[in-house]
Amino acid sequence: MTSKVVPVSFSTALFTDTYELTMIQAALKSGAAHRRSVFEVFTRRLPAGRRYGVLAGTGRFLEGLAQFRFEKAELDFLADHRVVDDSTLEFLENFRFSGSISGYAEGEVFFPNSPVLQVEGTFAEACVLETYLLSIFNYDSAVASAASRMTGAAGDRPCLEMGSRRAHEEAAVAAARAAVIAGFSGTSNLEAGRRYGLKTIGTSAHAFTLMHDDEEAAFRAQLASLGKNTTLLVDTYDVEAAARKAVELAGPELGGVRLDSGDLVTQARWVRELLDSLGNTQTKITVTSDLDEYAIASLAAVPVDSYGVGTRLVTGSGAPTSSMVYKVVARENSRGEMEPVAKASSGKASHGGRKTAVRRLNSAGIATHEIIGVDIEAPADCNDRPLMVDLVDHGEVIPGFTGAEGVEKAAARHAASIAELPRAASRLSAGDPVIPTEFV
Amino acid sequence: MTSKVVPVSFSTALFTDTYELTMIQAALKSGAAHRRSVFEVFTRRLPAGRRYGVLAGTGRFLEGLAQFRFEKAELDFLADHRVVDDSTLEFLENFRFSGSISGYAEGEVFFPNSPVLQVEGTFAEACVLETYLLSIFNYDSAVASAASRMTGAAGDRPCLEMGSRRAHEEAAVAAARAAVIAGFSGTSNLEAGRRYGLKTIGTSAHAFTLMHDDEEAAFRAQLASLGKNTTLLVDTYDVEAAARKAVELAGPELGGVRLDSGDLVTQARWVRELLDSLGNTQTKITVTSDLDEYAIASLAAVPVDSYGVGTRLVTGSGAPTSSMVYKVVARENSRGEMEPVAKASSGKASHGGRKTAVRRLNSAGIATHEIIGVDIEAPADCNDRPLMVDLVDHGEVIPGFTGAEGVEKAAARHAASIAELPRAASRLSAGDPVIPTEFV
Repeated sequence: MTSKVVPVSFSTALFTDTYELTMIQAALKSGAAHRRSVFEVFTRRLPAGRRYGVLAGTGRFLEGLAQFRFEKAELDFLADHRVVDDSTLEFLENFRFSGSISGYAEGEVFFPNSPVLQVEGTFAEACVLETYLLSIFNYDSAVASAASRMTGAAGDRPCLEMGSRRAHEEAAVAAARAAVIAGFSGTSNLEAGRRYGLKTIGTSAHAFTLMHDDEEAAFRAQLASLGKNTTLLVDTYDVEAAARKAVELAGPELGGVRLDSGDLVTQARWVRELLDSLGNTQTKITVTSDLDEYAIASLAAVPVDSYGVGTRLVTGSGAPTSSMVYKVVARENSRGEMEPVAKASSGKASHGGRKTAVRRLNSAGIATHEIIGVDIEAPADCNDRPLMVDLVDHGEVIPGFTGAEGVEKAAARHAASIAELPRAASRLSAGDPVIPTEFV
Repeated sequence: MTSKVVPVSFSTALFTDTYELTMIQAALKSGAAHRRSVFEVFTRRLPAGRRYGVLAGTGRFLEGLAQFRFEKAELDFLADHRVVDDSTLEFLENFRFSGSISGYAEGEVFFPNSPVLQVEGTFAEACVLETYLLSIFNYDSAVASAASRMTGAAGDRPCLEMGSRRAHEEAAVAAARAAVIAGFSGTSNLEAGRRYGLKTIGTSAHAFTLMHDDEEAAFRAQLASLGKNTTLLVDTYDVEAAARKAVELAGPELGGVRLDSGDLVTQARWVRELLDSLGNTQTKITVTSDLDEYAIASLAAVPVDSYGVGTRLVTGSGAPTSSMVYKVVARENSRGEMEPVAKASSGKASHGGRKTAVRRLNSAGIATHEIIGVDIEAPADCNDRPLMVDLVDHGEVIPGFTGAEGVEKAAARHAASIAELPRAASRLSAGDPVIPTEFV
């Protein structure tokens, strides 16, 4: 599909918590609003047992940043409901993000404390983006992180995203995008296809069969309209009878059959044998029905050809959000100098200072450490891959990260970063992050 | 806040799985597209251990239905990518939902197999809505169901929705709306406030404190700008010192303090004592930090005044989506008569026939059964409350269910339905649905 981005057609500025704006009001009065600051996005820990996370959302955030404007409708709402005072409304009316943003490339893997995004600007302009950017990165990364485990378990077999009905309708679009970044081959979601140039795919539903007088009539209708290369759903009544009928009607060119219920391991085996015995060695078997990375792994030795994944993908396979936070790590003091800051809250303390990060590789090019520090000097004998990429330069979004182009690049980055991880990264059993994070 | 609905400004028609449209293509050719049909939304089971579910999403669905149109941009996309053939494009171009929809009132509680939504129309017009409506009901109901357990555990204390940053930015708006339907008092989300007239609330973040030279300067700034009735965040450094400073600066009129870390049970107790000892008996304590219904219950005997709930709310507290499905239950046959249909898929069989549902109450007005049947005749001595409400009549959306008005009605319905349930409904321990579903 071509790369055609449908712009977000309305202001994104109210995807924001009330307190971001009331803090700006108070900070405008105290002067802190205009102090320079550096905020970082990171997670203190991965979901229990996960070996790595996958960053997603960057392209969506940069697309939405352009629409993050307080227009008349937004200002009227804030004024009518006295959310903030007049001088704050005036500030918001003129708000354009003029700071700089860098971070891990979209599709990159991350570990605890990886500074996946860094926003530099005045307190007011960095603060106002908090809720919006965390919404995007927390959801998209949760899906990409789950998707990456699924495509890893699937090996060379394609994974297809079919979870739209189990997520909020807009989240479904983001989920499809994140899944493709993490190696999925296509999505059933048409809006995601339109916005991000993703390959859209589909089979048919039980209702289609039930709407016809019998299964044969339904199969005939689908074959007549969509051609023999279509995938027929064969478990509405009796799987064996349906598979035989499908072959009888379509012949050896039948594209595929879909199994959506029952014991997929056993069923896929005898359906494959049946199809082969009927001469349909090229007819593919697609399995669906609440698959996750574990179910996919259990099907590795079973003759299926592709996996349709829904619910467990769009809900992050047990981790439906990431625990990313947005914390100020440095700010201008009253003498105009930048200084590191960090809160001390019990169990939630953070590391002060603007970070940079590199992935340390061994001589074989395999990752050994996530190195994070305020001023990193690589030892001369180290093979360190820098992780921070410039995304926004003094308010200007750097081209290449949005739309279909951004998704393609991110998918390539994901594949390269996964290839660089130690083998243990692909273990589905619970364990520690596959490489340690080291503060230097 | 006033009731001002911001309309969805673009077509919702591509929030749709590819196969809905390819099925229509095949069904247009076979003639099945024009057969009358009845589809029902239901769930086969509640999330493990849950006593009831709460339906949410109806208002959003009816708002989006008006925008479910294939306009030029959508048709061009489908044509350019050859998703469907020309005759299907022509059908979609003229598509207006002309059928009828009824279902449980928004905010109503439901049980396994409750027919929470019923769509009657031609196969094509009922089919094309599947993905979109399931996205809405599955997510919104997951949040409302979790929220209801939280407000139940909180009793008379207000629950405040603060989870926007842990959900997709649009899902966050839907989550705020669903939370308020299930008894939350307000939300931090400004867009939700704007669209649905919800009360918006907020305190301040650690970054605000860190941006000032010290905590005192931050507190002074917040009090000066937002007044003494504001809520100060007291756990950035040392909670006791911060609470004392807050009282020193604001005096007895200080609105509240927020605790966001550490052992909230112990901390809230001594902070309450400290505030009281300083004369601030009217200053409220708000607690946040990964609360869910269990944490709220554990704070029942602790002197806190309100609960700010985030992550666990917007992710459905362990059940981030509902398992609602959309199944054809009756259709016109080749003789033009309606007849019940049902698939037989292993483990996923459904009940054929268009259902109706009532909640059977005992003489004290307490629910005893969910009664579902194709033709229900109430015994004369039964106190049955009918559950199906008309929502769309031959394509016309019946007024009263959308916007702020819809949310208010749904919140009232939720409160009344919960009051009608047996006491065991509020148990947080895992158990069976609090009343059995009976097919008659």
